[in-house]
Amino acid sequence: MPAFGVHSEVGPLRRVLVCEPGRAHHRLTPSNSHELLFDDVLWVDRAIEDHRAFVAQLRAEGVEVLELREVLTTTLEQPGARTWILDRKIRPDHVGLLLVDEVRAHLEQLAAPALADTLIGGLAVHELPESAWSLALTRAAPRGAPTSYVLPPLPNMLYTRDTTTWIGDALTLNPLYWPARRDETLLMKAVYLFHPGFRPAAGQIVWGDPERDRAAATLEGGDVLVLGDGVVVIGMSERTSQQAITQVAARLFDTGAAEQVIVAGMPRLRSAMHLDTILTFADRDVVTVYRSIVDDIRPFTLRPGSGGGLHVTAESAPLLEVIPRALGLEDLRVVDTGGDAYSAERQQWDSANNVVALRPGEVFAYDRNTVTNDLLSRAGITVHTIVGAELGRGRGGGHCMTGPLLRDPVTS
Amino acid sequence: MPAFGVHSEVGPLRRVLVCEPGRAHHRLTPSNSHELLFDDVLWVDRAIEDHRAFVAQLRAEGVEVLELREVLTTTLEQPGARTWILDRKIRPDHVGLLLVDEVRAHLEQLAAPALADTLIGGLAVHELPESAWSLALTRAAPRGAPTSYVLPPLPNMLYTRDTTTWIGDALTLNPLYWPARRDETLLMKAVYLFHPGFRPAAGQIVWGDPERDRAAATLEGGDVLVLGDGVVVIGMSERTSQQAITQVAARLFDTGAAEQVIVAGMPRLRSAMHLDTILTFADRDVVTVYRSIVDDIRPFTLRPGSGGGLHVTAESAPLLEVIPRALGLEDLRVVDTGGDAYSAERQQWDSANNVVALRPGEVFAYDRNTVTNDLLSRAGITVHTIVGAELGRGRGGGHCMTGPLLRDPVTS
Amino acid sequence: MPAFGVHSEVGPLRRVLVCEPGRAHHRLTPSNSHELLFDDVLWVDRAIEDHRAFVAQLRAEGVEVLELREVLTTTLEQPGARTWILDRKIRPDHVGLLLVDEVRAHLEQLAAPALADTLIGGLAVHELPESAWSLALTRAAPRGAPTSYVLPPLPNMLYTRDTTTWIGDALTLNPLYWPARRDETLLMKAVYLFHPGFRPAAGQIVWGDPERDRAAATLEGGDVLVLGDGVVVIGMSERTSQQAITQVAARLFDTGAAEQVIVAGMPRLRSAMHLDTILTFADRDVVTVYRSIVDDIRPFTLRPGSGGGLHVTAESAPLLEVIPRALGLEDLRVVDTGGDAYSAERQQWDSANNVVALRPGEVFAYDRNTVTNDLLSRAGITVHTIVGAELGRGRGGGHCMTGPLLRDPVTS
Amino acid sequence: MPAFGVHSEVGPLRRVLVCEPGRAHHRLTPSNSHELLFDDVLWVDRAIEDHRAFVAQLRAEGVEVLELREVLTTTLEQPGARTWILDRKIRPDHVGLLLVDEVRAHLEQLAAPALADTLIGGLAVHELPESAWSLALTRAAPRGAPTSYVLPPLPNMLYTRDTTTWIGDALTLNPLYWPARRDETLLMKAVYLFHPGFRPAAGQIVWGDPERDRAAATLEGGDVLVLGDGVVVIGMSERTSQQAITQVAARLFDTGAAEQVIVAGMPRLRSAMHLDTILTFADRDVVTVYRSIVDDIRPFTLRPGSGGGLHVTAESAPLLEVIPRALGLEDLRVVDTGGDAYSAERQQWDSANNVVALRPGEVFAYDRNTVTNDLLSRAGITVHTIVGAELGRGRGGGHCMTGPLLRDPVTS
Repeated sequence: MPAFGVHSEVGPLRRVLVCEPGRAHHRLTPSNSHELLFDDVLWVDRAIEDHRAFVAQLRAEGVEVLELREVLTTTLEQPGARTWILDRKIRPDHVGLLLVDEVRAHLEQLAAPALADTLIGGLAVHELPESAWSLALTRAAPRGAPTSYVLPPLPNMLYTRDTTTWIGDALTLNPLYWPARRDETLLMKAVYLFHPGFRPAAGQIVWGDPERDRAAATLEGGDVLVLGDGVVVIGMSERTSQQAITQVAARLFDTGAAEQVIVAGMPRLRSAMHLDTILTFADRDVVTVYRSIVDDIRPFTLRPGSGGGLHVTAESAPLLEVIPRALGLEDLRVVDTGGDAYSAERQQWDSANNVVALRPGEVFAYDRNTVTNDLLSRAGITVHTIVGAELGRGRGGGHCMTGPLLRDPVTS
Repeated sequence: MPAFGVHSEVGPLRRVLVCEPGRAHHRLTPSNSHELLFDDVLWVDRAIEDHRAFVAQLRAEGVEVLELREVLTTTLEQPGARTWILDRKIRPDHVGLLLVDEVRAHLEQLAAPALADTLIGGLAVHELPESAWSLALTRAAPRGAPTSYVLPPLPNMLYTRDTTTWIGDALTLNPLYWPARRDETLLMKAVYLFHPGFRPAAGQIVWGDPERDRAAATLEGGDVLVLGDGVVVIGMSERTSQQAITQVAARLFDTGAAEQVIVAGMPRLRSAMHLDTILTFADRDVVTVYRSIVDDIRPFTLRPGSGGGLHVTAESAPLLEVIPRALGLEDLRVVDTGGDAYSAERQQWDSANNVVALRPGEVFAYDRNTVTNDLLSRAGITVHTIVGAELGRGRGGGHCMTGPLLRDPVTS
Repeated sequence: MPAFGVHSEVGPLRRVLVCEPGRAHHRLTPSNSHELLFDDVLWVDRAIEDHRAFVAQLRAEGVEVLELREVLTTTLEQPGARTWILDRKIRPDHVGLLLVDEVRAHLEQLAAPALADTLIGGLAVHELPESAWSLALTRAAPRGAPTSYVLPPLPNMLYTRDTTTWIGDALTLNPLYWPARRDETLLMKAVYLFHPGFRPAAGQIVWGDPERDRAAATLEGGDVLVLGDGVVVIGMSERTSQQAITQVAARLFDTGAAEQVIVAGMPRLRSAMHLDTILTFADRDVVTVYRSIVDDIRPFTLRPGSGGGLHVTAESAPLLEVIPRALGLEDLRVVDTGGDAYSAERQQWDSANNVVALRPGEVFAYDRNTVTNDLLSRAGITVHTIVGAELGRGRGGGHCMTGPLLRDPVTS
Repeated sequence: MPAFGVHSEVGPLRRVLVCEPGRAHHRLTPSNSHELLFDDVLWVDRAIEDHRAFVAQLRAEGVEVLELREVLTTTLEQPGARTWILDRKIRPDHVGLLLVDEVRAHLEQLAAPALADTLIGGLAVHELPESAWSLALTRAAPRGAPTSYVLPPLPNMLYTRDTTTWIGDALTLNPLYWPARRDETLLMKAVYLFHPGFRPAAGQIVWGDPERDRAAATLEGGDVLVLGDGVVVIGMSERTSQQAITQVAARLFDTGAAEQVIVAGMPRLRSAMHLDTILTFADRDVVTVYRSIVDDIRPFTLRPGSGGGLHVTAESAPLLEVIPRALGLEDLRVVDTGGDAYSAERQQWDSANNVVALRPGEVFAYDRNTVTNDLLSRAGITVHTIVGAELGRGRGGGHCMTGPLLRDPVTS
């Protein structure tokens, strides 16, 4: 069995990468959560428990679950890895000229697990030796505000799906849209360069390098749905631009990883952050969607063009017709966000449409969206639940929290 | 035993009014929650469970708990009560000229429990007979947005403490600050006028009448701490104005319900909504406070003046010195919001300082603020916990959710 | 010639009420402008100059212009008027119990012009004798923030059109939506009760009384277009509700002031504040509109119903067809906001569609919207310009700044 | 006379770079202005007039004024320059894979002035040949919203001071904080590489390269005050980080361009965007400041350390004492933002403290800040005025709009 490769949205899930909440979330506060892209603060200990329960369920179902902090620890234990990362993270541009030596010294003496935790969780000025504090030149702060960071926390690593994406046998290292998330991808590059289990797959990277600024070409995995049979749907959203999509499509066609890319041009709405917040698959021909936004999507199809270029078709049919046609299906069965207008709006917000399939017809969903979960059940889908009271506050569900590494095709 | 009267913050709690979450919260959505003063949407069924568990704990400790929906149902069953309320709520100014008859007819045929539920939970246009829909002249709405209300939902009735306030043997019917909450007080007036258990106390109302517009004179119970021994602290905040405080103080002095009112002039901060979000009592001489805001409070003392007026003292000492001096205490023992700056800011936001005492040295607090709760325990306080994952999203804790009707003095 | 009565949108304008900028605008700052409904601060002296130039043009064209501060001064000089106003404004609910006597004494000794200026411009704590400062119990404020008000400034009185509305021979005293504007209407009631020139018209008030709370029934004159021939268009917007429109329509039908009211149900958008910000008349059959919003309006027609009620028709045709049909016109000539999408959006924002007619085919418009003004000229409209650099920052144009008292019908 | 070098804040200004408003500002609309960092939209034609009048005054005073659009035009006419820029701007990462050829072809056929205008003003999809439109894969947009950009407009180039900074004989090419401004610096690099008048100075660049991502090391010229005598003050603000300041200081010490850098740690406030929005010099010992923010600044002094490093002193004295001490002055004469608290707050917002000196004791300031301008006059400063009604809406004044290329030291 290969170790990597994602060949569908709903085929049996074999291996998945997750990232347990932790130190980064302890640093979310009402005054910084907005810039760290969280709507609210979490009870971190409870979020950890809930995440562990989710992982235990996955494992009980036979899925191999890799936890990013552990993966990064193993990575840091490989020769050269620590140096590679610190050379790239502890530069004057990142920590200031005065702190390079102090911070480097501080990090060098940490054991691998503590260093992994710090790289994900961030480093605050007050964690350095007191002698270094004045070197941080901290600005005047209102009383009681949290102290400054030397290395920023990365609470959104919780959403491992966004940072790297397997599309068939091809891997992308994604340039993320918000500055608050950019450092995530560098850590993942280190994983693929040094971790013994990931290193063999490094040659399959087809696009994206976190050491290069990609300007407007940003891509987040939450916008990518790998349908199989050579079909990929990519949401064009605030966070995923045509600049990235067109490049990725060309690389997928070049490497044979895909034959057509359906671009889902999404309306400009806060609630439609990623495509997978309004549309995910529960079975080969079953989707759960938030209709009032999905109906406004403008679809395009990209196919290999003559002379190595791309061929664009602006589709006149709606996305929910374009997708089954591309898959050779008669139709999609659509499970709407449940309940009346109030309930549907609230549940979409609470990630009701962000389910992740364990195998065809079997998904994980937050417990709180009971009405939509009931509709899924009535449509013949088995719903396993994740406790969402804390995990859901970052506006991502089971689909966002799982970065699939190996998933089989759906066989009919 | 008298039925009403609040003589301290921490003496044995005898009777309390609460309001279970419900229909009003089913109507909170991401797009309307802001104007309804909630930060996020709730999983209502779970919030109801958590609220019931809290009530069960109170009852197990011997507290008589009255639930507002039930109280309002009993109220509506009294002769004249239904007419009194509908005459005041179903006017052209509230529902529009075209809907008065339709809405009145619809409500008249509801049984008392359903009517109580509607008065608290609101009435949407689509709940009326379809023949009435066009009479509502609904505006063009973006697709998928919730339909309009004829009667607005009152989700903040959950915070029964704010709407009416017992100060010693005196009762105020509070003019609430935000339009979204104004209709709460009218319902409470009906309760005091018609409910057999409340009617006897109607004569103790010393200030406030929801049938009169009070302009800038707004008061919310979350700003009032009744310390006993004639001392009351009132937070002067966004929601509680000097226009109200000065009038209430005069009435308290007139009726002998208080001898001095300490006005806590709070800084203009979203996180310092009410005084009880940053300072509550856990024992006679123990407070839990969010120091970084409490230290900025500007205290004044109001006492009866010559000739029936008020005498004002602008205090030079900080509030945490003014309070014990007024109570004849050596000092207050102060339990700060726990943990580092990140943790403290997060916990204050999550109502860590909003505890409510069952009896001296024994409080209810949200489970999620574990660090502050530990500090309270170490200070000798017994902490009972309330599940806060859902209930806490409206930014109110145990103190806000309990409107004390009868609480004994602290005897030393 | 009668002194009052508005019989069209474009017939010869005879008398108009305006309010020169002044003290209230001196108190707009970046930190309070939002709550006072201004987007930016003004250079007040320049705004005054520009306003005077506008008034001079109106007068040069034969329009009788009344300035509100002068009108209010005359009002205050009438026996009983000062007492009437102060009895209603200087109450404990407005200024606090401690300040009633101080403020009343301060205002009583002001001459009428200074008092008029204070009633419109507001009274700050620091304008009282220093002995009264502590009685204001001012909250802790961040350094440098403006001091508190005892009477709030009313900078939106600049928009005299909103506060009172003549519809034919009927007058409404409008309950304004935002608390920041509510006190405007009380001053206008005093004018109609006491000013010798206005008093005779007091009997023509058909709806609205600022001494009564109107709950959800709010109406602003910027939403009212009096087309003549018994036709009135009223925008149903954030600020003007069906609760008010239905009552006003009934009163207009009762008094014969109108025969049909077209309700323009506006989308929920910040840029579509009032109907007259997206649609005004330049000639009998010429409108200037911001098409991308006007096309989304949902029209209803109200007519007298059987038995004294209202008859509602939900129109299927768009507003720009419903209006000419009601007026017996073949069609409307429509002048769109000019230029490309960027320009049109910017000009609508800058009140390009908020023109006010001097007489048929002759309007006042801000100088800055040159593209739209050119289109109006090409459509045969004579455009007089108002300097808008400062006046326009409150998001109102010539139509908003003029409260017509007497305007002739259009004769064809 | 040398062509470049800035040796003081108030010595005779010899040469200056400005950028006339234009196409980029035509594309500001209410819905995009926020992300383009403007508070409001401009009347562009009037802004151009006002800017030209300012330039004419500068020239009349003997200052050589270079206009950026003209400078860029000359640059583009140099061999290799056009290719250099287009190779860097027209990449798949910037315009998408499908548009590279179309956009390149479109730009290649433009004459140098039109190309310069497009590089600054942006390129919208609808400006390309219609055959290219579908290649842009534009997202579903709400009706009437502006079409998408292929190259973004750079309206903030108006503030030439921010993008490049002369400190003595050393030049920095600044990495700007907001993504919306990042492309400005690349254009300036082209100018210094290719323009015959600028090329000789390219060797004086000591820090900054827009072709490299600088992570957290961002610097904007509005935060830099070159006082002369080896003293530079740099505001540490939202936009200028310690990561950049420490590197720049080290380079200035290395090259002898400065001997000490005073770091002004500014509070986190929207109104304190850059240091020069709250403090500028009007004469050798005269500053105009917005005291309520300046008093909260936390100053540090950086000096060359042993072994090539930096030496940091956390100053205990306030900035207004640290500065004169560094300059060997007894004291600074301070002209505060004028008027009461309302007026001062408003004027600071309107760039009252953002004056630029023509020579010692002679400054340019916006006309609208009359109170502060009067105070400057009374302090013996000659004030020339700039019409600010339109130019001021981007929240920058004369200091921001002038990028000094050559300014003499102050001789005492």
